[in-house]
Amino acid sequence: MQDLAQKTLTRENVFDGQILHVRRDEAQMPDGQIVEREVVEHPGGVGIALEDEDGKFFLVRQWRYAQEQETLEYPAGKKEKGEDPLMTAKREIVEETGYEGTNWKYLGSMMPTPAYDTEVIELYYAKKGAFRGQHLDSDEELDVNTCSLEELTRDVLSGKIRDAKTMYLTLLLGELKRRGEL
Amino acid sequence: MQDLAQKTLTRENVFDGQILHVRRDEAQMPDGQIVEREVVEHPGGVGIALEDEDGKFFLVRQWRYAQEQETLEYPAGKKEKGEDPLMTAKREIVEETGYEGTNWKYLGSMMPTPAYDTEVIELYYAKKGAFRGQHLDSDEELDVNTCSLEELTRDVLSGKIRDAKTMYLTLLLGELKRRGEL
Repeated sequence: MQDLAQKTLTRENVFDGQILHVRRDEAQMPDGQIVEREVVEHPGGVGIALEDEDGKFFLVRQWRYAQEQETLEYPAGKKEKGEDPLMTAKREIVEETGYEGTNWKYLGSMMPTPAYDTEVIELYYAKKGAFRGQHLDSDEELDVNTCSLEELTRDVLSGKIRDAKTMYLTLLLGELKRRGEL
Repeated sequence: MQDLAQKTLTRENVFDGQILHVRRDEAQMPDGQIVEREVVEHPGGVGIALEDEDGKFFLVRQWRYAQEQETLEYPAGKKEKGEDPLMTAKREIVEETGYEGTNWKYLGSMMPTPAYDTEVIELYYAKKGAFRGQHLDSDEELDVNTCSLEELTRDVLSGKIRDAKTMYLTLLLGELKRRGEL
């Protein structure tokens, strides 16, 4: 197979924000050509499908500023620097829904925009555990609902749900249930 | 339902690159609180599931610089400014695979990272049409393969395929085939 690797020659930090860091690199293609690459550095995060005793899943409705609209998404959050993603998931699920998760299962990882962004989202499934109480970040506001997998699948296929991790996780849950793996 | 909208108060361009533009805004939460929001502006793009006469799908193997690894993805590309996404899809499928698409079907749209990025990916299905010849951008190198939906599904579930649009589209194709809608 052809070697496709591109080597980094130089890195320049062009923006250091609170959450995002942006680099402009020079890289060398396998054919020797030198190209410019813009990279968004992101700490990565988690997405969690939390199932309750009725087989319904927790969804959060929130304002997504960059998209200028409300979205319906599985609970999710950013990793703290160096944090184990399962710890992030266990923390975020309580923060956003108020419930602990139990019977955690790892469902794989996703690169939302591999062309220019380092973000990786680790996906988890858990069953609803003890109630601890929601405690959101100071700049977070969200509504929590529960939906059956049938409703969620319908909302994905109709285009009502458009968040990538939520679209994939919903079809994945269906696939795993059909296979008897969940 | 609670109004979750956040109002933009100020916008500041903090990076203007070749592909990416980054803004730092001040926004007002529904409770009046003023928060900072970092936004990556991206022109948006398309992802295309192109099926050949044997029921196999075209995949491209390419180096994804930000993730420092090769990925296996459906053919995809960025929209030109103001371009109709179906035109983008028709252009990109020839550029990347060499084949035209026919029988185009719209499969919905996806927000890969709605928290901080304006990117929207429009998803399409097409059947393989006439051969026109691949013509890549000067800074693009990729290998083209075809895979059955069974192989693709296995590679998604095993974690070999980690690109968000490719993960979702693969399970979506399976779902639509089971429903007799494709």
